[in-house]
Amino acid sequence: MSTVSVIGRGITPFGRSDESIKSMVVKACREAIVQAGKPKIDAVFVGNFAAGPLASQEILGSIIANELGLGSIPAVKTEGACASGGIAFRQAYQLVKAGEYDTVLVAGVEKMTGLDTETVTQAINYAMDHESNEGASGLTFPGFFGVLAHRYMHEYGMEKKHLAMVALKNRQYAINNPIAQFKKETSLEEIMNAKPITDPLGLFDCSPISDGAAAVVIQRGDDGVQILSSGQASGTPLMQEVDQLLHISATNQAAKKAYEGAGLGPEDIDVVELHDCFSMTEMIAIEELGFFEKGKGWEALAQGLTQHGGKVPVNTSGGLLSKGHPIGATGIAQIVQIVDQLNGRACNQVEDARIGLAQNLGGTGAYSLVHIFSKKGV
Amino acid sequence: MSTVSVIGRGITPFGRSDESIKSMVVKACREAIVQAGKPKIDAVFVGNFAAGPLASQEILGSIIANELGLGSIPAVKTEGACASGGIAFRQAYQLVKAGEYDTVLVAGVEKMTGLDTETVTQAINYAMDHESNEGASGLTFPGFFGVLAHRYMHEYGMEKKHLAMVALKNRQYAINNPIAQFKKETSLEEIMNAKPITDPLGLFDCSPISDGAAAVVIQRGDDGVQILSSGQASGTPLMQEVDQLLHISATNQAAKKAYEGAGLGPEDIDVVELHDCFSMTEMIAIEELGFFEKGKGWEALAQGLTQHGGKVPVNTSGGLLSKGHPIGATGIAQIVQIVDQLNGRACNQVEDARIGLAQNLGGTGAYSLVHIFSKKGV
Repeated sequence: MSTVSVIGRGITPFGRSDESIKSMVVKACREAIVQAGKPKIDAVFVGNFAAGPLASQEILGSIIANELGLGSIPAVKTEGACASGGIAFRQAYQLVKAGEYDTVLVAGVEKMTGLDTETVTQAINYAMDHESNEGASGLTFPGFFGVLAHRYMHEYGMEKKHLAMVALKNRQYAINNPIAQFKKETSLEEIMNAKPITDPLGLFDCSPISDGAAAVVIQRGDDGVQILSSGQASGTPLMQEVDQLLHISATNQAAKKAYEGAGLGPEDIDVVELHDCFSMTEMIAIEELGFFEKGKGWEALAQGLTQHGGKVPVNTSGGLLSKGHPIGATGIAQIVQIVDQLNGRACNQVEDARIGLAQNLGGTGAYSLVHIFSKKGV
Repeated sequence: MSTVSVIGRGITPFGRSDESIKSMVVKACREAIVQAGKPKIDAVFVGNFAAGPLASQEILGSIIANELGLGSIPAVKTEGACASGGIAFRQAYQLVKAGEYDTVLVAGVEKMTGLDTETVTQAINYAMDHESNEGASGLTFPGFFGVLAHRYMHEYGMEKKHLAMVALKNRQYAINNPIAQFKKETSLEEIMNAKPITDPLGLFDCSPISDGAAAVVIQRGDDGVQILSSGQASGTPLMQEVDQLLHISATNQAAKKAYEGAGLGPEDIDVVELHDCFSMTEMIAIEELGFFEKGKGWEALAQGLTQHGGKVPVNTSGGLLSKGHPIGATGIAQIVQIVDQLNGRACNQVEDARIGLAQNLGGTGAYSLVHIFSKKGV
């Protein structure tokens, strides 16, 4: 098995875009390829959730290969709800590590704005188990994480303001991220008093509808940020089947595999991008990734342990909450931020960051992926 | 790199089904797992094109893993239009060969019936490049292959009746396939006089709208039908960019890689399943796969060289034209038929079949995959 590195990265502005899905993804890919020094690309993997219903466009793999003039190389789209990008990255990494390809372009993209709310909401709900009674009973993604938040508050004494502190932290990070969707100063009070979405989650506790694309080029060798390991796990897509409501077991399992693969533990991680589709999801994730004990995440957050100067800065890009959440792009955008951190070129740079981790969730815990990276030469 | 074998296969009836997409794919998977002797499964790959818009259901990877109780294993959906199934198979094969997994379940599924024609046609057209002028000008998949047929007739002297002979051959094979969509005796005259779809293609020259699922279990080792090689290539999704209209270069390139990988040539192949989404597509494919010279496929067909007793029997399952074409399932269903042939248990069994080939196309040539297999112990 070989060493594999990220040798180039590209990303478009996240938010509402006038550009087409093809235009966005090609732009991100081009930036990544140029930064990588225009190597010969052997395959393309692209993560995308719902380009069919949202942009009337499938076959994105072939479209990217063709539009960039990459020749007759293999091209693959992967889907796993919001984890579509992370899944694409993992396939590419495993196949380069195995020697099947030398250099692979991995992209993620979603086009979500400019449609009526019903179309977008309907497409997002394709990420639930449609045959279960849960969807029919009106359970939605905000509803699921709202229930988790209530239960967590009940079990561990967290208050609504701690959720707001997650949103505030990520909002403040986003201000410095040129590609972020939300860059306006926001106060804790504003977040606390925002329009309720699903009690106790308000508008700022929920990630937005976004357009955007991100891409990386990975290559065998150590000439870049090194990919140390990949962990992926599945979990039930149904709330009624979850063993313990406050655990997202797929994240825990994926992290375990990734830590084992890298020979590292949570104590070794200097910077993290994790899947904060809701503020509550970040709270659960910092526990499942082993940074804090179950039920103690909110206290750690309140003590500033998940930001600069604390134990481990989380979502320095602004996260899904404030950078934005173009579904298929998210997993790759997280990796772009970790790569930037380990190259010393990130917005909200963490001083002396050597090891970084990216965690990407799909559904309410149907998929989770964890990738661990190290700075070049570490 | 290890030897990898197909150790189990499952398939549902193709055609109009009352079952849900989940029910169909789980049924095919269960049959494959039972036939494989219920091994521990390490990962799931599922090929699917448009389960979102057609069945309101994404996250099929996780749903299969969860429904079958396979634990927290990695699960991935792949998309590449009608090549979605072949792409899923290739990922699984490459990763088992590389030692990333020991035993992998690969499924393919599509649910297409029970919807209004507009919804289905719209979804199928997601497999064209939506931003080009071609779709806007009214070019459709039947239109594309109709143009090819006219050009081929002009260049090489083929007549409409030779296309009908492709349809008749596949219809006759389907009569013996218990899972095929069309099992009624049909005459050449009936095919020739059928409702025109896009001149010169009539109803029987076009594959139908179908529901269905197929699955295989693959494992490291030689205890089954051996997978000798995999080739994948991309091509332009646009007619206006094609160098030579009568070549589908992705198929040619994919075949070249697969033959090289297996150390074999077209002369070694005993039985073939190839992508006859239209009768014309089969004519092109038998040439691109190297069985006959360019422009000579129609004569070979007329001489019976693509059926039992000829050079190489093609689409003994009935093909997409008559077995049916549930898009995501097709690539896996082709492999199921080749596996059955090499196990000596196929409908329309080819005597002493030792080497088989499956070719799966996506779009009008945006993707093509070729896999070569050998009988156990060969």
